[in-house]
Amino acid sequence: MNVEIIVIGDELLIGQVTDTNSGDIARMLAPYGWTVSKVQTVSDNADEIRCAVEAARSRSRIVLTTGGLGPTKDDITKSVLCDIFGGTLVENSEVLDNVRRIFSLKGLDMNRLTASQALVPDTCTVIQNLVGTAPIMWFESAEDGGVLVAMPGVPSETRKMFNEAVLPRLLTHFGHDIAVMHHTLTVSGISESALAQHLEQWESSLPANLHLAYLPAQGIIRLRIDGNDTDSQRLASLMASAVDELRELTADYLLYDGGHSPQEELLNILAEQHLTVATAESCTGGNIGHLITSIPGSSRSMLGGVIAYSNAVKANVLEVSSATLDEHGAVSIPVVEQMAAGVQRVSGADVALATSGIAGPGGAVEGKPVGTVCIAVNTPRGNESRTWHFAGSREQVIMRASTTALVTAIKLLK
Amino acid sequence: MNVEIIVIGDELLIGQVTDTNSGDIARMLAPYGWTVSKVQTVSDNADEIRCAVEAARSRSRIVLTTGGLGPTKDDITKSVLCDIFGGTLVENSEVLDNVRRIFSLKGLDMNRLTASQALVPDTCTVIQNLVGTAPIMWFESAEDGGVLVAMPGVPSETRKMFNEAVLPRLLTHFGHDIAVMHHTLTVSGISESALAQHLEQWESSLPANLHLAYLPAQGIIRLRIDGNDTDSQRLASLMASAVDELRELTADYLLYDGGHSPQEELLNILAEQHLTVATAESCTGGNIGHLITSIPGSSRSMLGGVIAYSNAVKANVLEVSSATLDEHGAVSIPVVEQMAAGVQRVSGADVALATSGIAGPGGAVEGKPVGTVCIAVNTPRGNESRTWHFAGSREQVIMRASTTALVTAIKLLK
Repeated sequence: MNVEIIVIGDELLIGQVTDTNSGDIARMLAPYGWTVSKVQTVSDNADEIRCAVEAARSRSRIVLTTGGLGPTKDDITKSVLCDIFGGTLVENSEVLDNVRRIFSLKGLDMNRLTASQALVPDTCTVIQNLVGTAPIMWFESAEDGGVLVAMPGVPSETRKMFNEAVLPRLLTHFGHDIAVMHHTLTVSGISESALAQHLEQWESSLPANLHLAYLPAQGIIRLRIDGNDTDSQRLASLMASAVDELRELTADYLLYDGGHSPQEELLNILAEQHLTVATAESCTGGNIGHLITSIPGSSRSMLGGVIAYSNAVKANVLEVSSATLDEHGAVSIPVVEQMAAGVQRVSGADVALATSGIAGPGGAVEGKPVGTVCIAVNTPRGNESRTWHFAGSREQVIMRASTTALVTAIKLLK
Repeated sequence: MNVEIIVIGDELLIGQVTDTNSGDIARMLAPYGWTVSKVQTVSDNADEIRCAVEAARSRSRIVLTTGGLGPTKDDITKSVLCDIFGGTLVENSEVLDNVRRIFSLKGLDMNRLTASQALVPDTCTVIQNLVGTAPIMWFESAEDGGVLVAMPGVPSETRKMFNEAVLPRLLTHFGHDIAVMHHTLTVSGISESALAQHLEQWESSLPANLHLAYLPAQGIIRLRIDGNDTDSQRLASLMASAVDELRELTADYLLYDGGHSPQEELLNILAEQHLTVATAESCTGGNIGHLITSIPGSSRSMLGGVIAYSNAVKANVLEVSSATLDEHGAVSIPVVEQMAAGVQRVSGADVALATSGIAGPGGAVEGKPVGTVCIAVNTPRGNESRTWHFAGSREQVIMRASTTALVTAIKLLK
């Protein structure tokens, strides 16, 4: 089943907000073999919305819209949908109760503009928004059985309500009878094009209902095999062979099975081996700590860290020797090795990740251009320290250095 | 001038990559009064690409595509454009030299797949990609003078090359004769709907060529006035009055002039007042440090911080008293106050930001539900400590707590 998404809002077209709803929805549809065939992003303009909705409905039986439902005056989606599907805007008492409930949860007073959110077309079925004030509206076409669902633009609201209320209703309404499987391997240490050349022949020998996708991220590449078949047992057997072959072909670069993040993989390994971790970050400035602690349950293994941005913090908290700092400079192997040892000392952690480098755009010195990053990782199974050279913006250097530290720890602990 | 963007790639429609190129392009077009009227996201499928390109060209004289130009076999944009604009794919020696140069910069060997990037339609003008291997292709329609520019999908490549090469060429080709101005005020401490009600009357009294946009982010709202006029002096005077009025109307909530981030504002204030900063983060896990150190030049004011995730790190590194931890628990005002003082002691920083809370989804205790976060901020102009309750996912609680700590510091130092 093809699904089209229409993302509504001037704020998206002027580039002040990035759409994440369409990706969230696509990921939730994938397990059922439903795919997003097209996304249109349009402004808060009645004609543009109408045009996009009509084009999408002519191609797809499921059309989802996000955004354009807030209380401020540039939100006009409801009137457009009212025109397209007929009917008039009427106050819905259940929606009004829900708006009141949400406001009282947040400790805020209802105001007139927010109350206008309770107006909905009388031709739609309302799905109560449990986490926000904008109602979700389900429209069915009497002619072709097609469905349009209008959802709010706030990502947390759309994610939760699509998953818990809209998707189950769509599955019931349309049924689904095709088996779908995915398997992802995460590799590192090879460029996308070298990998593509290495796998080219194998890839062209895959059965037509299996497809290999390359998903490069900072410092890692995810290889995802997608398959679908009307016979789920046949699919499982095809997938199992393909995954085995791919695992063998990428053995030299294989980091782990699955498409989860390196920080999740590291936390899994730490939990299995009953180990704790701490970070000592200079150029990555807390990003490794942030990546690790973004994962629910990370507090089981993560003890903490030191953001040793200034040399004073390196010396006072991590006991990096000032002689070493003077002789080798802050961006050096001896300094990151002392940082890793230092954070193990103050935290008691089994594993330490330490970084010191030049994220740029300024700060380059003779022999150490922007992108130079020293990374030391200590583990009970061995230590590794190495100087890396990362290309790209400040943000990219920080992200690549963070990923590389996590990947180094994974490799040492495997 | 209306611009349409077509974003190409299966990885976007399955939700494994989020499009940031269209927003980047929109922000670069805005100063010239050019707007993005529509974005279409389509798969790596020849028919879909052709269909999207033809529809966009029928509506807009400038069509930009991003993505679909890599070396792997699912990238077919070049052949489609070759069909639409006529001509054949030929090897371009300058592109081949560029591909070699990029590969040698990265210390990698060229391979056959990468060399295929040097094939370009002989009906386009090539704009050399200075930072990647995929060439940028400029097509002109002899019939209507419309332009299509095909750019790579890698955000850093598109950002740099659009700004430095494509945009200047588009401006020259089409000219531009309308003055455009923007002004943004950042406010905090009021909900979007309360603010909208407060400003409704004033907003409807604005001249037709000025427009107010609400841009809520975690913990702050940006209010942006956009204006355009054929007479730049008249526009400047209209804008100045509107900004003054808006500043007066929002005086109680105004955080700062401009649409930059709270971390940039805090760094500006610290630089002006010759102050240094350090962080002591429990539930935010390094995110405040990451936000601050993501800003180039932050090392002038940022000394570092401690990610005090475990109670042991709180006690050993920050000298939080174990009696206080026992009596009040880690998520308490006395503990964050000791964390703030502790990080000032070990770093020597003038300003300290400390957080301790329950980011969820687990970890709630009696009287302290998920989202409870204690924040203490010390500055030479006074201290503040307070318990907050943030709604949302783990990621949102972390982000809201981080922003609130930064906003608290800004307010204390203003």
